[in-house]
Amino acid sequence: MIIARTIEELQEARKRLNGSIGFVPTMGALHQGHLSLIQQAKRENDYLIVSIFVNPTQFLEGEDLDAYPRKEEADRKICEVAGVDIVFMPTIGQMYERDELCIGAPAVRGYILEGEKRPGHFDGMLQVVMKLLNLSGATRAYFGKKDAQQLVLISQMVRNYFMDIQIVPCEIVRDENGLALSSRNVYLNKKEKQRALSLSHSLKRATKMVMQGEVNVNIIKKEMLQVLSETDRVEYVAIVDRQLRSLEKVEIGNTIILVAAWVGKTRLIDNIWI
Amino acid sequence: MIIARTIEELQEARKRLNGSIGFVPTMGALHQGHLSLIQQAKRENDYLIVSIFVNPTQFLEGEDLDAYPRKEEADRKICEVAGVDIVFMPTIGQMYERDELCIGAPAVRGYILEGEKRPGHFDGMLQVVMKLLNLSGATRAYFGKKDAQQLVLISQMVRNYFMDIQIVPCEIVRDENGLALSSRNVYLNKKEKQRALSLSHSLKRATKMVMQGEVNVNIIKKEMLQVLSETDRVEYVAIVDRQLRSLEKVEIGNTIILVAAWVGKTRLIDNIWI
Repeated sequence: MIIARTIEELQEARKRLNGSIGFVPTMGALHQGHLSLIQQAKRENDYLIVSIFVNPTQFLEGEDLDAYPRKEEADRKICEVAGVDIVFMPTIGQMYERDELCIGAPAVRGYILEGEKRPGHFDGMLQVVMKLLNLSGATRAYFGKKDAQQLVLISQMVRNYFMDIQIVPCEIVRDENGLALSSRNVYLNKKEKQRALSLSHSLKRATKMVMQGEVNVNIIKKEMLQVLSETDRVEYVAIVDRQLRSLEKVEIGNTIILVAAWVGKTRLIDNIWI
Repeated sequence: MIIARTIEELQEARKRLNGSIGFVPTMGALHQGHLSLIQQAKRENDYLIVSIFVNPTQFLEGEDLDAYPRKEEADRKICEVAGVDIVFMPTIGQMYERDELCIGAPAVRGYILEGEKRPGHFDGMLQVVMKLLNLSGATRAYFGKKDAQQLVLISQMVRNYFMDIQIVPCEIVRDENGLALSSRNVYLNKKEKQRALSLSHSLKRATKMVMQGEVNVNIIKKEMLQVLSETDRVEYVAIVDRQLRSLEKVEIGNTIILVAAWVGKTRLIDNIWI
């Protein structure tokens, strides 16, 4: 496994990969969710590149970039065991210069849901992802459905800019109780973990309603909010199409149901694609 | 020569080009200046793609997009004679969707000089150029030094986003008197054409001063302004480095001297790289 810390090292190592390349960009602190992306990328490609880069431009003012967990040694071991060919761990100076061109998330899609709570976050995310996708020269890049809006916007970026790479959406990984894996789950105590299950429960309830023929989003949302009353505060429940446009009726095969809620001091998100 | 009017037609035609590809993006109404880019691209590559697309996003409100000259038939003939392999002439609908991701020109470099007069212009220009560069899949793309700031910003875009394409700067084409070719020159009457020469004269004077050892930009600018007094109004005279940063002293091999001035009702620009 090659550890590339500079653009040149990455490009040098990448040149030697003749075949399809899978790419998994991460901010490190790898958990089972990342590992599932890495394993899928490994299965579907001849070679595998993982990047670990805590991108400053997607943190807003007041968000604690410095407190973001960094576990370089553990991450490297996970990559090694998973059969990664190149781990790209650049410094900020390798990735950015002064007075850069920036990317603006779509005016509507980029500023609703998560984008409403973190205005500008997606601009920075898209900026670094475009850099990384181009650098990787990969055939396919893997993103989890957990960050649904991120995934939709990255797919749109690839479409809008005619980028020559395939974006592969990956299923959400859940623990044995259905809780979507997240690095934030460590902040939950036992009781909170129990209450946090109401997010996935609300999504299951919604799915069940749809399967039973209910497509009216208001009726579904109302039911979901009931289930979510176990959380401390619901930030949003949204039922949108795969382009993040509001729906009045669920369209099977073209719908995402998303929820964001607080349990104790932890903000959790979850979603389901139906 | 293949005329591709859709993304699919372009991609289909491009697939059949096995070798290096030169690419010249244009807004049509081709003149000798474009032809010189096309000929250089032809010499330096196995295949040649030219795009003709009047990009709406780089026109500001009040700028007359509809009045921009369109000469499809003549342009096609020029391309045919020049040995172009693919002419890409998409509709706006092929290039854009609603609620797009946008590109933001650098906060400083994108909003001085031409960017100061046309705020937002470079955002739209960079947006369409990124789309076109990715679509072309070219080895090299050719841009004239006449639009110096555009060229610097496109080079920065390729660098910032690690795009896998080489940007080739091409020399300014001038008429027998030294007037830089521009589609706007047709607006000049005989007397104005004479006065318009003061732009290139001022640049020649500056170059001569530098060659004689004068590097103080204020002294050079003062002299240039004297020469430019034949125009009706000077918009700017700037002496910057190749990254568009202001200079106090000319750095040979790293300097661009730019001028923008009005002659009658026509705004002209010119520059020299020394």
